[in-house]
Amino acid sequence: MASWFRRSRPRAEAPTLTPRDTAAAALRVDLGELAPAPDVFLGHCAALHLTFIEQLTAAMANATRVADKDALARAVGTVLDRYRVLAVELERLHLDKTDVMQPHMAGVEEFKRRTEGGEWYEQVASAHVTIGFLTDFWIRLSGGVPGELGQRVAEALAEGDVQSPLHRILERAIAANPRLSSRLALWSRRLVGDTMLQARSALTLHADSSRDEAQIEPVFTELIAEHTRRMDRLGLTA
Amino acid sequence: MASWFRRSRPRAEAPTLTPRDTAAAALRVDLGELAPAPDVFLGHCAALHLTFIEQLTAAMANATRVADKDALARAVGTVLDRYRVLAVELERLHLDKTDVMQPHMAGVEEFKRRTEGGEWYEQVASAHVTIGFLTDFWIRLSGGVPGELGQRVAEALAEGDVQSPLHRILERAIAANPRLSSRLALWSRRLVGDTMLQARSALTLHADSSRDEAQIEPVFTELIAEHTRRMDRLGLTA
Repeated sequence: MASWFRRSRPRAEAPTLTPRDTAAAALRVDLGELAPAPDVFLGHCAALHLTFIEQLTAAMANATRVADKDALARAVGTVLDRYRVLAVELERLHLDKTDVMQPHMAGVEEFKRRTEGGEWYEQVASAHVTIGFLTDFWIRLSGGVPGELGQRVAEALAEGDVQSPLHRILERAIAANPRLSSRLALWSRRLVGDTMLQARSALTLHADSSRDEAQIEPVFTELIAEHTRRMDRLGLTA
Repeated sequence: MASWFRRSRPRAEAPTLTPRDTAAAALRVDLGELAPAPDVFLGHCAALHLTFIEQLTAAMANATRVADKDALARAVGTVLDRYRVLAVELERLHLDKTDVMQPHMAGVEEFKRRTEGGEWYEQVASAHVTIGFLTDFWIRLSGGVPGELGQRVAEALAEGDVQSPLHRILERAIAANPRLSSRLALWSRRLVGDTMLQARSALTLHADSSRDEAQIEPVFTELIAEHTRRMDRLGLTA
């Protein structure tokens, strides 16, 4: 088990209104050589995006307000646009989608099963936590992918806004029913472990694991800080 | 009950490979004054597209092959692109999405419930039949919407290709298991009634219903002929 599972919760920074994308772009530490080969990088990312689409649409189907359905449909659209870019990059490299995605399907589907909520608000919170964390992670991972591929993927993943519509739905839900706070805080905390394992599974780890951990640690610390900021903005303890 | 429910099945035309969009564009009869006001026209169409997205993504989530997930994700993307155009048209008319979609939600959700399949192939067939028929219908309905609105919506609905990926999935399934044919043929026939009722519910009918029926009849005859061609291409009896 990586040491970042045992570390104490990073001190929550003051809630800010910095958009996620700007904050993600400001991340400094590099995953460098832990980034996988382009086919693995793209295949895993594309497979994850399929589960994001399924996750968001399940929440959309269960929404009772038309405005929420619309907001979730737009979030699905943003994820689909990113998926399309990943598909274009696979074509550019003459890689077969099935070949590169198949090895990751069992893992991401198990991840989806473990993180899908029963109640509607849990479903929205799941999308909020997992898509937020993993998109930040994948943008960071892109930095270690050589050439323009990494940069193009990072730009695609920063394009559009999946988090804000999810944030607004949760914010309204909590305002209407303040008792939801503690439940959603617990649920979100429960999700972070699986989400970090999913991120970690994308890294190419070496025999000398202590060196790997030294490289992983600061990145995950920053990603958890990002997650904590998202929770803070909802008034939830991360 | 409209007379087109009792009419005998239109004679199946020889299977052709004409793409749906071209065939739809070649439709000649007009729904004219039966088209609803722009807010009702757009609201109903947008609400339907939300259910198309949910329907396709449910099938995507249940797909076991990565290639099928990818094909269904792309179909979702096409429907989402059309939904985005509808949203732009609503904004252009300064109409609130919730206001115009809400009156149609109960109807389209009931329609979705009645047409959602239990088995995966039934889910794909449901999307194939209902999206195919209703998109043809809405393109036709657009002809009765005054100004450029109708034309822009018709163009948006003809953009992209939802049917082909669904067709290919069903074609492969039937080839692998020919006994599926009769089951899918029955299931598809079962869907057409609900689908035609859904289409009919979008029309503005008048007190003089005999004149309405005279106008509806030839349009539905053509739409059923289109549906029959889609079934023929799959080797299924419509």
